[in-house]
Amino acid sequence: MDVLVINGPNLNTLGTREPEIYGSTTLAEIEDGLRAQASAAGLSLDTFQSNHEGEIIDRLHAARTDGTRFVIINPGAFTHTSVAIRDAFAAVAVPFLEVHISNVHAREEFRRHSYLSDLAVGVMTGFGVYGYTMALDYVITALGTAGD
Amino acid sequence: MDVLVINGPNLNTLGTREPEIYGSTTLAEIEDGLRAQASAAGLSLDTFQSNHEGEIIDRLHAARTDGTRFVIINPGAFTHTSVAIRDAFAAVAVPFLEVHISNVHAREEFRRHSYLSDLAVGVMTGFGVYGYTMALDYVITALGTAGD
Amino acid sequence: MDVLVINGPNLNTLGTREPEIYGSTTLAEIEDGLRAQASAAGLSLDTFQSNHEGEIIDRLHAARTDGTRFVIINPGAFTHTSVAIRDAFAAVAVPFLEVHISNVHAREEFRRHSYLSDLAVGVMTGFGVYGYTMALDYVITALGTAGD
Amino acid sequence: MDVLVINGPNLNTLGTREPEIYGSTTLAEIEDGLRAQASAAGLSLDTFQSNHEGEIIDRLHAARTDGTRFVIINPGAFTHTSVAIRDAFAAVAVPFLEVHISNVHAREEFRRHSYLSDLAVGVMTGFGVYGYTMALDYVITALGTAGD
Amino acid sequence: MDVLVINGPNLNTLGTREPEIYGSTTLAEIEDGLRAQASAAGLSLDTFQSNHEGEIIDRLHAARTDGTRFVIINPGAFTHTSVAIRDAFAAVAVPFLEVHISNVHAREEFRRHSYLSDLAVGVMTGFGVYGYTMALDYVITALGTAGD
Amino acid sequence: MDVLVINGPNLNTLGTREPEIYGSTTLAEIEDGLRAQASAAGLSLDTFQSNHEGEIIDRLHAARTDGTRFVIINPGAFTHTSVAIRDAFAAVAVPFLEVHISNVHAREEFRRHSYLSDLAVGVMTGFGVYGYTMALDYVITALGTAGD
Amino acid sequence: MDVLVINGPNLNTLGTREPEIYGSTTLAEIEDGLRAQASAAGLSLDTFQSNHEGEIIDRLHAARTDGTRFVIINPGAFTHTSVAIRDAFAAVAVPFLEVHISNVHAREEFRRHSYLSDLAVGVMTGFGVYGYTMALDYVITALGTAGD
Amino acid sequence: MDVLVINGPNLNTLGTREPEIYGSTTLAEIEDGLRAQASAAGLSLDTFQSNHEGEIIDRLHAARTDGTRFVIINPGAFTHTSVAIRDAFAAVAVPFLEVHISNVHAREEFRRHSYLSDLAVGVMTGFGVYGYTMALDYVITALGTAGD
Amino acid sequence: MDVLVINGPNLNTLGTREPEIYGSTTLAEIEDGLRAQASAAGLSLDTFQSNHEGEIIDRLHAARTDGTRFVIINPGAFTHTSVAIRDAFAAVAVPFLEVHISNVHAREEFRRHSYLSDLAVGVMTGFGVYGYTMALDYVITALGTAGD
Amino acid sequence: MDVLVINGPNLNTLGTREPEIYGSTTLAEIEDGLRAQASAAGLSLDTFQSNHEGEIIDRLHAARTDGTRFVIINPGAFTHTSVAIRDAFAAVAVPFLEVHISNVHAREEFRRHSYLSDLAVGVMTGFGVYGYTMALDYVITALGTAGD
Amino acid sequence: MDVLVINGPNLNTLGTREPEIYGSTTLAEIEDGLRAQASAAGLSLDTFQSNHEGEIIDRLHAARTDGTRFVIINPGAFTHTSVAIRDAFAAVAVPFLEVHISNVHAREEFRRHSYLSDLAVGVMTGFGVYGYTMALDYVITALGTAGD
Amino acid sequence: MDVLVINGPNLNTLGTREPEIYGSTTLAEIEDGLRAQASAAGLSLDTFQSNHEGEIIDRLHAARTDGTRFVIINPGAFTHTSVAIRDAFAAVAVPFLEVHISNVHAREEFRRHSYLSDLAVGVMTGFGVYGYTMALDYVITALGTAGD
Repeated sequence: MDVLVINGPNLNTLGTREPEIYGSTTLAEIEDGLRAQASAAGLSLDTFQSNHEGEIIDRLHAARTDGTRFVIINPGAFTHTSVAIRDAFAAVAVPFLEVHISNVHAREEFRRHSYLSDLAVGVMTGFGVYGYTMALDYVITALGTAGD
Repeated sequence: MDVLVINGPNLNTLGTREPEIYGSTTLAEIEDGLRAQASAAGLSLDTFQSNHEGEIIDRLHAARTDGTRFVIINPGAFTHTSVAIRDAFAAVAVPFLEVHISNVHAREEFRRHSYLSDLAVGVMTGFGVYGYTMALDYVITALGTAGD
Repeated sequence: MDVLVINGPNLNTLGTREPEIYGSTTLAEIEDGLRAQASAAGLSLDTFQSNHEGEIIDRLHAARTDGTRFVIINPGAFTHTSVAIRDAFAAVAVPFLEVHISNVHAREEFRRHSYLSDLAVGVMTGFGVYGYTMALDYVITALGTAGD
Repeated sequence: MDVLVINGPNLNTLGTREPEIYGSTTLAEIEDGLRAQASAAGLSLDTFQSNHEGEIIDRLHAARTDGTRFVIINPGAFTHTSVAIRDAFAAVAVPFLEVHISNVHAREEFRRHSYLSDLAVGVMTGFGVYGYTMALDYVITALGTAGD
Repeated sequence: MDVLVINGPNLNTLGTREPEIYGSTTLAEIEDGLRAQASAAGLSLDTFQSNHEGEIIDRLHAARTDGTRFVIINPGAFTHTSVAIRDAFAAVAVPFLEVHISNVHAREEFRRHSYLSDLAVGVMTGFGVYGYTMALDYVITALGTAGD
Repeated sequence: MDVLVINGPNLNTLGTREPEIYGSTTLAEIEDGLRAQASAAGLSLDTFQSNHEGEIIDRLHAARTDGTRFVIINPGAFTHTSVAIRDAFAAVAVPFLEVHISNVHAREEFRRHSYLSDLAVGVMTGFGVYGYTMALDYVITALGTAGD
Repeated sequence: MDVLVINGPNLNTLGTREPEIYGSTTLAEIEDGLRAQASAAGLSLDTFQSNHEGEIIDRLHAARTDGTRFVIINPGAFTHTSVAIRDAFAAVAVPFLEVHISNVHAREEFRRHSYLSDLAVGVMTGFGVYGYTMALDYVITALGTAGD
Repeated sequence: MDVLVINGPNLNTLGTREPEIYGSTTLAEIEDGLRAQASAAGLSLDTFQSNHEGEIIDRLHAARTDGTRFVIINPGAFTHTSVAIRDAFAAVAVPFLEVHISNVHAREEFRRHSYLSDLAVGVMTGFGVYGYTMALDYVITALGTAGD
Repeated sequence: MDVLVINGPNLNTLGTREPEIYGSTTLAEIEDGLRAQASAAGLSLDTFQSNHEGEIIDRLHAARTDGTRFVIINPGAFTHTSVAIRDAFAAVAVPFLEVHISNVHAREEFRRHSYLSDLAVGVMTGFGVYGYTMALDYVITALGTAGD
Repeated sequence: MDVLVINGPNLNTLGTREPEIYGSTTLAEIEDGLRAQASAAGLSLDTFQSNHEGEIIDRLHAARTDGTRFVIINPGAFTHTSVAIRDAFAAVAVPFLEVHISNVHAREEFRRHSYLSDLAVGVMTGFGVYGYTMALDYVITALGTAGD
Repeated sequence: MDVLVINGPNLNTLGTREPEIYGSTTLAEIEDGLRAQASAAGLSLDTFQSNHEGEIIDRLHAARTDGTRFVIINPGAFTHTSVAIRDAFAAVAVPFLEVHISNVHAREEFRRHSYLSDLAVGVMTGFGVYGYTMALDYVITALGTAGD
Repeated sequence: MDVLVINGPNLNTLGTREPEIYGSTTLAEIEDGLRAQASAAGLSLDTFQSNHEGEIIDRLHAARTDGTRFVIINPGAFTHTSVAIRDAFAAVAVPFLEVHISNVHAREEFRRHSYLSDLAVGVMTGFGVYGYTMALDYVITALGTAGD
């Protein structure tokens, strides 16, 4: 798979969880849209969601050998607490983008710190579920540039 | 189920772990007592224990649709480290109480911070295993008040 | 007196002060209820309220010699500022519970620190005026355990 | 009384205490001047000074029922240490101004923090004893605006 | 000019900017009122507003030689970030008052620090646009005292 | 103009400044590209660059009345130091995006704090000069959604 | 009176409070000993103890006019919390010594800060009740030096 | 089993992950070597690796009853974030060593804090994969001392 | 020009501003002296002073193309607040010295931090106006070494 | 020797160093006075001064075996920086007093921290050179109590 | 000499100092054992102990020219306070190990910081005097690897 | 001697230590150059280097009586750790300059703090060994100014 999209804890509740904040689009709808967007660009794309830090690490390790060229991750709450996912990215050495649906800077103080951002290629926050589309647009452009 | 009682990591060792601190009552005995207490009040009560943060999040998500009206949680060590469980409570939007068996204020400095307390209805610490009984007493009263 | 219930500054205004937060029960009604609850358990109970730190210290000193076996205190604002009341508890060496009506963790940052909590047997916050009843329930149980 | 002027600890020594800093005007003279200024504007004004935090709280509680429409307070040292007076203002819910004779920003670091300022309508510091006159001028204007 | 009134960045938008907070009085109206108030007291008064830190410094330097006896400044956002304006006041050595329309203590944490306050004669915050009037009243009194 | 693109200090040197970091695209080329992109979407777009904080504030004030519906800003170094630009956005009340070319999280510690981010709709960092394109894509989508 | 000895909150319990720490000497015995020691040196000495911050301030104010030449104070818990007593010493302008029976440096972290120490002539901590004798010895020597 | 060797998250990638830092020895090779080293000393040794905090806690709990006399743990990223593993060690009450392959003091600041070190018998960092051998050497010596 | 000497805000007041601290030499005299000193060494030298951060940035940008080989800057108050000037130096990539007339370490705490020092070749503080001469002496030596 | 008096760095300059602060008594005079005071009480006393941390440690080690029963130390600047002297006291396990001539609380902030105070029996600061006499008086009393 | 073993302040008291913590082995016995261990591996080893920071620096400087290939250092208290020894290691550029007998993480907070650890090859703490043996074992292995 | 040049720990290794940073000039060559420079100006100059803090203090004390009129010190690592040398300068009351060869602001964070800088006349850092020459140039000028 060329692109791997990972969503962290509680993002499986998108669409029903606080819709006034997160909108009414479900994660399945987002993932379907991203697959279509990738496919249109001639790229394969896999998705993964888990509430378990260990499963995300396992999935990242698998990316070392399954051909993944770029990861888009919304780490959810693990953004602020998981050194282990940070280390997994360092171990796998795959470029990645960090995406947040809401604007983390306008929320609790502890959300201003990320254990991933300094390792990421780029970080975007506050663009709603459209942020995934923008991130994939970047990846498509970057892979095109790098790959051709 | 009306009430869900969640115990976090290491609480499965109650009764054998440092009994001079935590007493000799096992978690099974506590859970049996709470079920009986709830039943006497005409409420159903489910219990859950896990050492895995992800499993607690999964269980909380299930509470959105299984009729849970109140959660009593002793988050153990996750109190101090889990933003993901905090977010799960926000996503599920069910009222909850935070219970600690020992007095966290008399222990290490890092135990004074909780990622859950400001979202909880109430917090109690130091009342030993009797704290669960007191918390359920509150829930019974609150549901009675709210329900009738 | 077996049990002494102390209420700190501004708690004399309960019932009229911000009733949407603190409810409409007055302190006198709370104290009457606690006396009845204690009496039903065969215990005597005295109440004390003051806006003066010094008077609370004086009252605690008196507890050394009047047979007080347990103190329930809602220290109000003195929670966060009074080393002197902390020292009074240490001097009198009587077990005590710390009770807050509202959830201090959901309010100003400075309310997260208490000069009493690490000396208390237990601390409860956010249970409304029902917290006094719960605390006394604990004391009745504890004294029964210890006394019989 | 329409306006209540409260002075906190050590302000009874005005006129004799460090006159090169605080001037030679006594508190009695200040209070007389304020009464005259209020009277000229058709307002009644009461004054109160105490070195006892508890007495200031008691006096504020009385303001709930005696018709006080605005409080001017120079909390002195209690500015920096009294959560209880802060809570009393919240309980009484009367608008108030915070006045300091000297410029607290040019003194010890700990004087830069006030437990009252964020609840006050306005704060003034450094205007000498004339600051009371200015504060009352504001109150007269504000009550006139609100009352007519 | 006897008195110089300086307004910092964004204060040119007074009257249209967030009128529920800042009121509907424009800066021109405020400045006209102050000129009239000064004139009635026999003093000349000049006003200056800029969104450029450097222009405010230039204007302050000019005050060294144009006879300015007192400055009233609402430094706006420069309050919290400009060491250069602080140094300009030190270089010019003219007494000044610091005025804020809203109560900075009730806003973001970073607004609690001022690079000017410890050098000012006095500071006032929260009195709305009437604060300018009060400040000028003080200046008139002070100059009268000093000058006659 | 529908969209205003503002670039802060030193961004006029794009293309020649540290090209290994910032690339060899000049600011003029970026601005031309954005105008074309906007035009293709039926929107007008204006650009502005300045090394002067005051000029950026002045330009933002003009946006109140010139029909600007969205601002894209790369505040450069002012991100970390300018409360005045923050206040200008609050005064103008126009939605805006914050864009950084390099990944600020991988640079000096002081670049992790922004005075603008919590007021922004969204923030993106590390996407190179392509970030401007992505930001404008978002704006086109958002205005389309809101406008049609 | 030449010398005034003030003891703060909880020191009235000396002799019975934690005797393994504070010894079995009562405050009355200490005060009697100090009076005798002063008398032998030809000095008069008055003693005062209170659990009320306000009463200590009132007593200090009285020292301005009753001839007190030196104060020895064990401020107890007020050491760490009372700006008002600090200000009272500044207002009265009488030299004073700060005495602590136990070694505050070997206790809780918050006991390491004193609001009085920088204004005191000297500070002693950890010498037990004998510290009062040592302090008075210093005062006798100092007054002898100054007075003869 | 006498000795339990636990490796935390990402250590399953040893040998392939950043070999210039961690070397080319795989975890399986390390574990084989440790088993041989233990066997030569007449001790049994079990190994465990997981990227899941909960599984490590579960494995530690099992150590309470399976005869484990000493644990050697390289907690990886959980060193810095897991209070739950800390609590598991306290619950199991088995002595343990903390081993890090790289020198954590020469890496990111956050790696300088460990939730385990103060409970460990000893900590070693920077000795490469040879550190496991050294740690087991210590355990063999310690158990020999204690066991004979 | 070989050497560019930049003076930041308020340094145009040298000679009249606090002469007991800064001396009575004017900036024009200093600049004349430096030009003569440079000329004697066969170097051309330009000077620039501004109270506007943006103008200093503009001037630094011009140095990229006007042949400037070394900059001597006394950034004044911008030392402590201007990330933009820091970034300008990085963009222009010209070596520079940071000079302060007074000893910043003996003044307010906030003057101990500089946004420029870690990028500078060298920093000198406290040598009075003679510090400019010393700095130019260094530059002459360094350019001589590099240029010959 | 029963008592050892140690003076740390720069105390050899007493009498000539800043006499308006430290007085004109030389260290030799102080030491002579202490020897006489000890002798009168039937105790032997040795003195030691060094500007070398290592020599003070060596001297303390010697105290383990030369019969020293109590140490009086004025550690001077080593108070704030020497963990090694702290450890030496722990290694030697002899009771000691910490004496400072000036009031360290009224000086630089860094003088408020001592690496010795929590291990000392008592600490005194601000009593001038008379503090040595007071300290020895305490030691004489303490040894008399313990020895007889 | 191939290996140099340095022990810092107070380690000359090993064997008699707090033997319940540090054991009864003397430093001479440790050094004899290390010499024998090195000799068996065909390496020469020198030992050095001092309570003087300067002497340790002098000894390290000598290591530049006497053939030392590895240093094992227990810096004792200098761990936490000596930048000079840190700089000496940088100047000499010899690889070194940092060894602590007790577990510094279980002691005072200030012992958690080391000025040497980030420059060391490896650090070990808590292994008792056996830690020296382990460290030398590592050095023998490392030199064997590098030397053969 | 008119001028005393002191070099602190590890500066005796100049020329061989990290020559890419510190250059290849030895300390002896630097000292010879300074003596010649002083001699040419008609001043005598003495040099001193030590790795022992105590010896530097002793040398400074000697400067009180040997006619030293100015000290130039490169305190090396003692800059950041030695309160005792700070106190020695205060005791000797001789003016001094603080010189660092490398730019301390571009190195570890802890090198940004100096215990000497606020007492120094001036501080220079980053000018290489030429900094000594510049410092002596200043001293020659200053002594000429003061002495004639």
